[in-house]
Amino acid sequence: MTQSIYSPTGISRQFDRVREQSVYLCAPLEAEDYAVQPHPDVSPPKWHLGHSTWFFENFILADYATNYLRFDERLNWFFNSYYESQGPRVLRSHRGNMTRPGLSTILDYRAHVDHAMRELLEQEDPEVVRLTELGLHHEQQHQELLLTDIKYILGTNPLYPVYRRRTTPSPAVAAELTFLPVPAGRYAIGHTGQSFCWDNELSHHDVLLLDFAIGSRLITNGEYLRFMEDGGYERFEFWQMEGIAWARELEVKAPQYWYPSEDGWQQYTLDRGLVAVDPHLPVTHIGWYEADAYARWAGARLATEFEWEVACKIFSPDIPQRGNWVERESYHPTVATDPSDHQLLGHVWEWTNSAYLPYPRYPRPDGALGEYNGKFMINQMVLRGGSCATPLRHIRPTYRNFFQPDKRWQFTGIRLAKDV
Amino acid sequence: MTQSIYSPTGISRQFDRVREQSVYLCAPLEAEDYAVQPHPDVSPPKWHLGHSTWFFENFILADYATNYLRFDERLNWFFNSYYESQGPRVLRSHRGNMTRPGLSTILDYRAHVDHAMRELLEQEDPEVVRLTELGLHHEQQHQELLLTDIKYILGTNPLYPVYRRRTTPSPAVAAELTFLPVPAGRYAIGHTGQSFCWDNELSHHDVLLLDFAIGSRLITNGEYLRFMEDGGYERFEFWQMEGIAWARELEVKAPQYWYPSEDGWQQYTLDRGLVAVDPHLPVTHIGWYEADAYARWAGARLATEFEWEVACKIFSPDIPQRGNWVERESYHPTVATDPSDHQLLGHVWEWTNSAYLPYPRYPRPDGALGEYNGKFMINQMVLRGGSCATPLRHIRPTYRNFFQPDKRWQFTGIRLAKDV
Amino acid sequence: MTQSIYSPTGISRQFDRVREQSVYLCAPLEAEDYAVQPHPDVSPPKWHLGHSTWFFENFILADYATNYLRFDERLNWFFNSYYESQGPRVLRSHRGNMTRPGLSTILDYRAHVDHAMRELLEQEDPEVVRLTELGLHHEQQHQELLLTDIKYILGTNPLYPVYRRRTTPSPAVAAELTFLPVPAGRYAIGHTGQSFCWDNELSHHDVLLLDFAIGSRLITNGEYLRFMEDGGYERFEFWQMEGIAWARELEVKAPQYWYPSEDGWQQYTLDRGLVAVDPHLPVTHIGWYEADAYARWAGARLATEFEWEVACKIFSPDIPQRGNWVERESYHPTVATDPSDHQLLGHVWEWTNSAYLPYPRYPRPDGALGEYNGKFMINQMVLRGGSCATPLRHIRPTYRNFFQPDKRWQFTGIRLAKDV
Amino acid sequence: MTQSIYSPTGISRQFDRVREQSVYLCAPLEAEDYAVQPHPDVSPPKWHLGHSTWFFENFILADYATNYLRFDERLNWFFNSYYESQGPRVLRSHRGNMTRPGLSTILDYRAHVDHAMRELLEQEDPEVVRLTELGLHHEQQHQELLLTDIKYILGTNPLYPVYRRRTTPSPAVAAELTFLPVPAGRYAIGHTGQSFCWDNELSHHDVLLLDFAIGSRLITNGEYLRFMEDGGYERFEFWQMEGIAWARELEVKAPQYWYPSEDGWQQYTLDRGLVAVDPHLPVTHIGWYEADAYARWAGARLATEFEWEVACKIFSPDIPQRGNWVERESYHPTVATDPSDHQLLGHVWEWTNSAYLPYPRYPRPDGALGEYNGKFMINQMVLRGGSCATPLRHIRPTYRNFFQPDKRWQFTGIRLAKDV
Repeated sequence: MTQSIYSPTGISRQFDRVREQSVYLCAPLEAEDYAVQPHPDVSPPKWHLGHSTWFFENFILADYATNYLRFDERLNWFFNSYYESQGPRVLRSHRGNMTRPGLSTILDYRAHVDHAMRELLEQEDPEVVRLTELGLHHEQQHQELLLTDIKYILGTNPLYPVYRRRTTPSPAVAAELTFLPVPAGRYAIGHTGQSFCWDNELSHHDVLLLDFAIGSRLITNGEYLRFMEDGGYERFEFWQMEGIAWARELEVKAPQYWYPSEDGWQQYTLDRGLVAVDPHLPVTHIGWYEADAYARWAGARLATEFEWEVACKIFSPDIPQRGNWVERESYHPTVATDPSDHQLLGHVWEWTNSAYLPYPRYPRPDGALGEYNGKFMINQMVLRGGSCATPLRHIRPTYRNFFQPDKRWQFTGIRLAKDV
Repeated sequence: MTQSIYSPTGISRQFDRVREQSVYLCAPLEAEDYAVQPHPDVSPPKWHLGHSTWFFENFILADYATNYLRFDERLNWFFNSYYESQGPRVLRSHRGNMTRPGLSTILDYRAHVDHAMRELLEQEDPEVVRLTELGLHHEQQHQELLLTDIKYILGTNPLYPVYRRRTTPSPAVAAELTFLPVPAGRYAIGHTGQSFCWDNELSHHDVLLLDFAIGSRLITNGEYLRFMEDGGYERFEFWQMEGIAWARELEVKAPQYWYPSEDGWQQYTLDRGLVAVDPHLPVTHIGWYEADAYARWAGARLATEFEWEVACKIFSPDIPQRGNWVERESYHPTVATDPSDHQLLGHVWEWTNSAYLPYPRYPRPDGALGEYNGKFMINQMVLRGGSCATPLRHIRPTYRNFFQPDKRWQFTGIRLAKDV
Repeated sequence: MTQSIYSPTGISRQFDRVREQSVYLCAPLEAEDYAVQPHPDVSPPKWHLGHSTWFFENFILADYATNYLRFDERLNWFFNSYYESQGPRVLRSHRGNMTRPGLSTILDYRAHVDHAMRELLEQEDPEVVRLTELGLHHEQQHQELLLTDIKYILGTNPLYPVYRRRTTPSPAVAAELTFLPVPAGRYAIGHTGQSFCWDNELSHHDVLLLDFAIGSRLITNGEYLRFMEDGGYERFEFWQMEGIAWARELEVKAPQYWYPSEDGWQQYTLDRGLVAVDPHLPVTHIGWYEADAYARWAGARLATEFEWEVACKIFSPDIPQRGNWVERESYHPTVATDPSDHQLLGHVWEWTNSAYLPYPRYPRPDGALGEYNGKFMINQMVLRGGSCATPLRHIRPTYRNFFQPDKRWQFTGIRLAKDV
Repeated sequence: MTQSIYSPTGISRQFDRVREQSVYLCAPLEAEDYAVQPHPDVSPPKWHLGHSTWFFENFILADYATNYLRFDERLNWFFNSYYESQGPRVLRSHRGNMTRPGLSTILDYRAHVDHAMRELLEQEDPEVVRLTELGLHHEQQHQELLLTDIKYILGTNPLYPVYRRRTTPSPAVAAELTFLPVPAGRYAIGHTGQSFCWDNELSHHDVLLLDFAIGSRLITNGEYLRFMEDGGYERFEFWQMEGIAWARELEVKAPQYWYPSEDGWQQYTLDRGLVAVDPHLPVTHIGWYEADAYARWAGARLATEFEWEVACKIFSPDIPQRGNWVERESYHPTVATDPSDHQLLGHVWEWTNSAYLPYPRYPRPDGALGEYNGKFMINQMVLRGGSCATPLRHIRPTYRNFFQPDKRWQFTGIRLAKDV
């Protein structure tokens, strides 16, 4: 990878900030919320707290800290997630059965590791700084999962408890949807420069694009409701065969966390619990199958990840510091009232029509850290742009997120594109 | 059913005692232990605390307490278990996903209901007394499940935490196994008298038995190990076809909670955690399939439930007040050192070779309480005698417990019989 | 077992008759019909032809015929069904994938074995006669399965081809259903005498019965339709819990081979294809779950197998030589127009409320033949009386058939009983 | 699509040739082989014969032939495969249960449709010619499936019957594997000109490639065996996570149709039955997961479909008329003895590292024929080059085949590529 952007004191400050944020995200939970795994994709919150800690102990302290004593050998085994090279693991689907170690033990584990890390960081070893930056990005990824896993735990509970109550936003009207043209040409793709990026954003290379246009904002609940009311979920002509089979088998008829009521569709939100679906808010918690079907119904298509990246660099060249990231604590996408607000960064991850595959000359690293991205490069689709659950300092326009086409528990949404 | 054995003050005292015992059984748990369901048969401990409370609210307070205000309407829906006539339910397999209501809410619910029940009991309404006795027996059944569910939660956790540490018993030697003869004849079966029994113990009727003999004590771990070492789990000639298919598919090679180690088999126990298997202790946590195969290997057979009941009335006519019931808090069967200790009551439930079917003129009650026993009368086998997890005041020689032949998480064991 | 009823020439004649009948039952099939297995319980017809032949080769010719040459060693492996002691097997669920050996090879195999058997039978060895009789009863059991498997293959094909067209019976009206009383008492159960029986009909023993009454005929389609129209399949109060869960999961709403049409329910029959359901015909192709629920809806219950056997000996002491057995070639139950026709023998197998368990002093034989009945004695219910697919010379009032409670592809039906 | 290359007489001749070839491919089968479906991906041969006929009846005769009488309305329903717009269908997984219509009926159906088609083709309607050409390409695709489905039916039967015996080839030695360089540049991709192609080969467009080199021939059994012997199937560092999970769950340890024996690995082949694995033959019947893992083990990678197409145009610009296509009737890939034989066309389909996604400006057609390719564009990987089961006149260098990464029953193989 690359060298760190952090000075020795900078990395210590960032270490404290990121580590505290994980605990802060869990603060509204009750004790039982930490332990369960209501879906195989969802990990218990206490598992995230332990696993992100394990990363620092296993990959940094064990190798670089003199005389470091592990907190408990057994926890190393517990909190390994998928690093095959790191030995046997608790089966992912059994995480929710592991009531022990309990939360208090895990918080002690965090304190133990944080203390040792802070001492180690004082030595200003560049390799430690580099690995620590990696560990913090790893933890930020788990913060996004933590929040979406918490949403699953609370949002499928029939009591629909509020996570963190926020001031209810005033009703707002979404700007008109238009299409922004991008001329054909040869464009650069991927990360450049010395700052941190994941291996999958490399190598920097050029692609050829034809003329296209990209939607000026995200698709709204209201627009998606028209697709639903037009029989969208039943009309095979809009769907991939595998997609409509999925919808039929699981009886999917609406986005995740949408529940029918006598007064129409309701939606579970972290900040307000169960509320009526607001037609001006961006639609979220839909899978690629649905995004692809919606786009065909709308007479459009999804952008490729290359089209998306080029459009982002043109229309949103700067990362909005006050954008809808997790730090804003809205915990939900918000309305684009201004036609110049393209919502390309933040709010929801945007499904593209690109499979998650290696870029040319992709540098798959060796060893355990090499497993990080390179072993998921089949049967997943790329998402771009970050979401309201993503930390601001974690995102880049070149960032490639990826999920299987049926996954819906992340904050995912729809951006249209068109040939012109 | 029958009239209550309790005087008005007697029922109040028993109410307090039973209700406190449920909470006492949970006292060693950590917060996370209350919430999970690591197997579809296992319910979260907090669910048991809520469901046993729901019984009193739903079947007694709602009908008999003037101006009773329900604690929370939604909990009524939550804590219904299988009473189809009581409306929609949380799917049994989803109980472990329901982190809310949390434990503190459920304890408030218990206090609310207990308070109202105590007031109601002061009115000395005989029907209330009768239903309360029923509710307490219901709660005692759930106490046994609570303890065995807790054992599953802790005993499949790789940290093998101790539940409640007891004084380690001195090593003891099991008495020799002999066979006690019972002469052929016409014998009475089923409950008589006015005291409480479940509907499935009725009607009292006679059966004909041929000469047989019954094992003088339970089968031990050491005896069962010889079956295992003799290839017992692989040799189809000892098994029901369905049984060996079950063992092969699930790769069952030993009783539940037995784990191989370099020093031989170890066993998870509630009172001592993971310990070496003691050959003199009764074998437990085996299914009917295994009990039946073991008996054939041993050149014997399982008793029918009628043979068992007759033998019990002959050889253990009295319920041992200081027997190995849950009140003794050994939480595990103990060694029969004395040849006159036949272990027929307490220690482990004994699989019989009788299917769980209605007795002649079985009085299936109407309404929700009628669902209690009568709708499980297919594909289950009868167990007799109670276990170290059974409350003393809950058992009778005529008591019929029943489980599917693959179930192993209860304290179940083997009693042999023979034709003579 | 017992000695044979056959003289040396008698057994040869019976051998020819039974062996020819298997081929005759297949005569209406097209080539493809022989090969498939549309349900795990259904075996391809050519498999039955091979397996019944294998029995004679494997258990008789291999041991008793001098210089016998096996037809093809590989077929021995192919046609073993469940005799674990006879080595590895083709997985039961894969039988329908085995297009080879083809039918012509299997018919050659039959000819080869039949020729050797006829030669061997001329030697008049009593043990050979005894085993041959056993083999013929085994083949007769497979003839019943052959016919019901053929019904499944043809009756789930949307072309609903007729198997063997018979003269359409004139419409007939079922006699009124009454209840025939049987007095309480001590009754003998099980087979006696020297003639052939299966091991599971032994040992002969006595049971005690209370007063009861038994339905005068089988339940009809019309009676069953009233149960259906009364919401029978949805009303849990009539069902075992396991039964209604089965009906819900598989969306069972009618007997097997019943198909809805614009003109009401239609039913696939072997002799006439798809026809309107005749309300006077006995209902058939229902499982124990449905029989049990129907009986409860009707305010009655199923008989135990002991009650059934006693009633049969009283009300139908003789086997009707011209009864509705497979030799009559109606291939469907027929209407009981005469109040004295109790339909206890023939027409449909009658579900009882007895689990299939060993009789006292059940003599489970050793070796491969010992696997025949004794290893199915769990989670199955007893059926009595034979059906329109049963060979006349195969049945007895003491005959115990057994299936799991969800099985419906046999000719199964309902007989009510009542306490009096 | 495009206009036809065929003159009116040319299309009639091609019609006869293709239609006869389907029947010819089935000639070695026994009656039972036509009916079964031993795997959900495998269709019964008689289904292919019917379905390819249905295409002509449903899409051509029904619309263009005056007074055409359908052979049997019900067959239209039977032989629809996945055209959702054409109404309800027999579930794909139930095809193997449908013994009726039998083969003779289907052959009558073919004759009926062929007769009507020949009459219609005499009218020389250009639209009919265009649709007929489409129907013949459709039938050629099913011919490839027919042969691979037959291989599955025979190759998983423990008798391993030969399909069509060919002269055994003399042992041959594979040429050395080298890597052929291709310079970086802008290259044209996709079909051009007026001749037939599938919609998924359009639109013609340019891509940028970096320098790379492509393997001079296919990977051999011997090379693959070294991967196996090096623990390749167990070493996660070579695999996609999803791939190694697949191999573990299904216990995949070798290519499909490889069976262990005392003398080493054997392989089922259509032309010789079960034979020892020849190390010089190309490896085949492996999935993308395995191809990808092998490439990583070998220090190389799979080519993208664009690299493959460019390399093919450079190194094999002409389609080898005497190549290893289905017309050669070797039914297996053959050895590349000559270093100039690159095996790019014919032998086996070559897995690429490109997901099956639409080309820029992909023209997804409307209506039923539009379902043909466009609805499979998720979770499938592209294969290139055709195989020994592909008809010569069916292939092009721009041809895009596609399967899920676990599929192995096609003739699939490995071509390596490298960055240079």
